[in-house]
Amino acid sequence: MMELHEKYMREALRQARKAYALGEVPIGCVIVCGGKIIGRGYNRRNTDKNTLSHAEITAINKASKHVGDWRLEDCTLYVTLEPCQMCSGAIVQARIPEVVIGCMNPKAGCAGSILNILQMPEFNHQVNVTKGVLEEACSDMLTTFFKELRVRNKLEKEMKKHEETDNPSQNA
Amino acid sequence: MMELHEKYMREALRQARKAYALGEVPIGCVIVCGGKIIGRGYNRRNTDKNTLSHAEITAINKASKHVGDWRLEDCTLYVTLEPCQMCSGAIVQARIPEVVIGCMNPKAGCAGSILNILQMPEFNHQVNVTKGVLEEACSDMLTTFFKELRVRNKLEKEMKKHEETDNPSQNA
Repeated sequence: MMELHEKYMREALRQARKAYALGEVPIGCVIVCGGKIIGRGYNRRNTDKNTLSHAEITAINKASKHVGDWRLEDCTLYVTLEPCQMCSGAIVQARIPEVVIGCMNPKAGCAGSILNILQMPEFNHQVNVTKGVLEEACSDMLTTFFKELRVRNKLEKEMKKHEETDNPSQNA
Repeated sequence: MMELHEKYMREALRQARKAYALGEVPIGCVIVCGGKIIGRGYNRRNTDKNTLSHAEITAINKASKHVGDWRLEDCTLYVTLEPCQMCSGAIVQARIPEVVIGCMNPKAGCAGSILNILQMPEFNHQVNVTKGVLEEACSDMLTTFFKELRVRNKLEKEMKKHEETDNPSQNA
């Protein structure tokens, strides 16, 4: 089972790399049904200028269109980072029975970190959750992204400061 | 302020009526920015065969396209029924500062009933919430819908039973 989980998490990581290439926080997702990937998604929030462009929402949208049903009852969702409150909610609403997570998101995740929306007995659906599949690869991709982002932001700030020093008149 | 809230809640109720006409659970939503409605939505989950076709998600999608930003920071969202976990999550993710609710959903709502996702201090955004605007109209529409649905389901069941009694050979 773990071998299969790793196989599909590698596909989710491939999706995350597409987000990385766009300068988006690298998060990827695939939805598998009957041994076939029926939905893929990666974070495109800034590119699309739309909060609904999270990896999981895009994948759920595609999978629903594929099966022709709002219920994704025989599907497994693979995602590189613990889902947020919106995506965890969408997973429960779509009745997805199984979710496999790469690494956790202690500051904002809703599959055990801040909340555990996927497994609340108060809702009409609970999800089986497997955590830590290819955890290091998923986590490393995010760490590298944010490290690069900090360097880029710092450089931009310094360049701006130099420009201002070179052209003091523009500050008048 | 309450007069304005009622004005836009009436628009959300107009949206809900569109869902009703399709045989969908009647829930409607509008998003207002600068005195203008920039996003509308109504529940189309069965019609679209898609879990993302909740009223609020549709309205957020349209509003994001209208303002060209994933942040809906100057907007007020009006919805006839307390949002579910997915839609509450989307509202927080979109940084919507203000939500006005018609009636509550004690069994599944996530703006105070089961959870209060809109106002959790653990998240990076909290929402101002006004409840009970045109509460009776919002609630009555749902009650009537479910009453009709039960009658329809009962009639269909009885018709099926009669058909089986009339054609006993088909049960062999």
